[in-house]
Order: sequence, then structure tokens, then C-alpha cells
Amino acid sequence: MDKRFVITIGRQLGAGGRALAEELGRRLGVPVYNRELITEAARQSGLKSELFERADEDENHLTPLGTGIWSFGSMINSGYLNNDTLFAIQSETIERLAEEGSCIIVGRCADYVLREHEGVMSLFVTAPLEDRIKRICSSCGEGEKECRQRVEQTERKRASYYNYYTFKTWGAAESYDLCLNSSVLGIEGCADVVEAALKQKFK
Amino acid sequence: MDKRFVITIGRQLGAGGRALAEELGRRLGVPVYNRELITEAARQSGLKSELFERADEDENHLTPLGTGIWSFGSMINSGYLNNDTLFAIQSETIERLAEEGSCIIVGRCADYVLREHEGVMSLFVTAPLEDRIKRICSSCGEGEKECRQRVEQTERKRASYYNYYTFKTWGAAESYDLCLNSSVLGIEGCADVVEAALKQKFK
Repeated sequence: MDKRFVITIGRQLGAGGRALAEELGRRLGVPVYNRELITEAARQSGLKSELFERADEDENHLTPLGTGIWSFGSMINSGYLNNDTLFAIQSETIERLAEEGSCIIVGRCADYVLREHEGVMSLFVTAPLEDRIKRICSSCGEGEKECRQRVEQTERKRASYYNYYTFKTWGAAESYDLCLNSSVLGIEGCADVVEAALKQKFK
Repeated sequence: MDKRFVITIGRQLGAGGRALAEELGRRLGVPVYNRELITEAARQSGLKSELFERADEDENHLTPLGTGIWSFGSMINSGYLNNDTLFAIQSETIERLAEEGSCIIVGRCADYVLREHEGVMSLFVTAPLEDRIKRICSSCGEGEKECRQRVEQTERKRASYYNYYTFKTWGAAESYDLCLNSSVLGIEGCADVVEAALKQKFK
């Protein structure tokens, strides 16, 4: 790909969204950012003071740590940052990463954060519930019942988070450019289809 | 394609689902069936007597036409067939068409009707609301307000019909194998992506 692009990937838990991101990252030679990496990127870059100030205004969530110096990691780990502030920090980081060069971003409402950017293709990856539970079971080693519960709880949270921040509906076809069933197409097959779509979008 | 296949296409009104069906029909050399053609196919084939009997039991909707002979077309046109009976007739016709050979079926919950068949790929076509209204306006010549109303009403009906008969959610990514935004990819682009997906599914 000659042009700069960003692929954003939303996904049902256990549908293989992260595996697809990695496959696409390998094929296209671009970095893949998930939640942990976005948090790390935010930490390394330092944060805009206005974000600290905003966090500072939220007396329900922020308490000085004694030293008078805020530690980003400790704020997140200890729950001092509320969701809105965390969303703002992550969004700013996502925008910066998108400016730096082509990349793939998993989750974090990146499709919405980058809605004004050119060259963004938004994906959503699905798979039938039973397949997703199987995938989760085999990766975490827990029982079927626990994994089913985890899938259901995680999806409720993801949907609620996405719907709140994006004004769109999580998992609705119309919220994305392309939605793929990974059980039907396989991860490599999904990557082939995405490459065909990229050619169309950026030709 | 060597193997027999059926492509089913669900779509938002004005998203170009029918145009995509026609483009795919041309490329793949297979017939395209929409509602009118399915009704016509049902009429030409004659109907199983059990369907008549079921219709006959519905006293709210069926009244003898005087001659004692039922006319399929007149039953549909005059509203004598209730929704459930019509759905059964259309479903039987869709199954027969799928048995006859590779084809493309637009709407009519064909993805659900053919859920037990091998070789079915289900698509859903979306586009942003404003693009869909523009498309409808330019094809029917009516004003923006009327077209917006028509889009909204039609979609409510489609969703309600689909959700009732399929136990799935109309327009939810997880209800389909592949969902495409035609404003992003274009009709020809969508067809390219679908061809890539067909190769994966039926390789």
C-alpha cells in the first residue's frame, strides 16, 4: 500500500479480532496496537497537561498520591482516572499513532476517534457464540460455563462502552465499513477479504 | 465457481443491495431473484396443497372467490394470504430455487430459510443514511422529506419482519457472513470483495 492507512478492528470476544489484526499487521508490514499498547504509548509520550487538569477536576476519582506528582500508570492501576478521562487520553494517543504512520488499532472505539481522518477502514469481526466460547475455553483453559459467562459479560461491557462514546451501535453492520464472520472465512480468509477491500477503498 | 452456491443479500433501503446482486449475477453468470421474481416463481410452479390448506384455515384472511378455485396472484394481490402463509410459500420457493442451481436471492430472509443448506453465503449491504436518502430521491424523483420517511418506514418493517421470522437481528453484523458499506467500497468494489470471500468460503 502506497497511501497511509489505518485499519480499526472491533470484535466480539473470541471471534479472533486480535489474530486478524496480527495477520494483517504481518502482511501489510504495519504495527498493531491493542489496549495495552495504547496505554503504554500514552504513558511513554507524556500526557497533555489539559488532560491532567481535567482529571484533576474529578474529585470523585482523583486524590493526590502524597508526592504531588501524578504517575500515569498508578492512576490507571488504582482506578484514579475516570472513564471519560481515560477515553480522552486514549483518543489522543490513537490520533497521534494514526498521524505517525499506517497501523492497525484493535478496540478502543478507534473507528469513532478517527472518524474525521482520511484513510481509515473500520472492521468488525464476528463468529457464532458457540465457536467463540470454544475459542476462549481453549485459550484460557477454563470450563465452558465460566467462558460463556465471560463472553456475555465482556460483550455487554464492550457494547455499553462503544454505544456511550460513539453514538453508534456496537456490532451493527452500519457502524463499520466491513464486517466479517471469522468462522466462515477463517483468519487468513478474512485477511484476504480485507486486502481486497483495502484495494477498493484506497485505489 | 465450480461448486453450487447461493448468495443471499439483505440490505438497508437505498444501500444498493439490488445493484450489487445484479453486478454479482453478471460476473458469476447466475440468476438473481428478488421478491417479485420469487412470487412469480411460486406462481408458476404451483403450490403444495398443504400450503393452500393452511391458508384455508385462516378464516380472517381467506374467503372463497366464488368459483371455488384459488388464484395465487389474486390471493396475494387482494391480501387473502396472511404473512405466515406467504412466508411459507416464499420459503418453499427459495428452497426449490436453491436446489435448481447457483443463484442470488435478495431479501425474503433467504439467509434464514437456507440456514441448513451448504454453500450459502449471506451478505448485508449498508450505507450512511444520507447517502441512502440521496439514492432513493434520485431514483424516484420525490422530495428529500418523503424519501427519508420512506427509508425509515421500510427499514422498520424489514427489521420487524426479519426479526420475527429468523430469530436473529436484522442488520446486526453477527447475523451475516459478510457486511459491506457500499458508500465506502462502491458497488463494483463490493462485488470484488464478495468474490474474494466466495473464494475463501468455497475453496
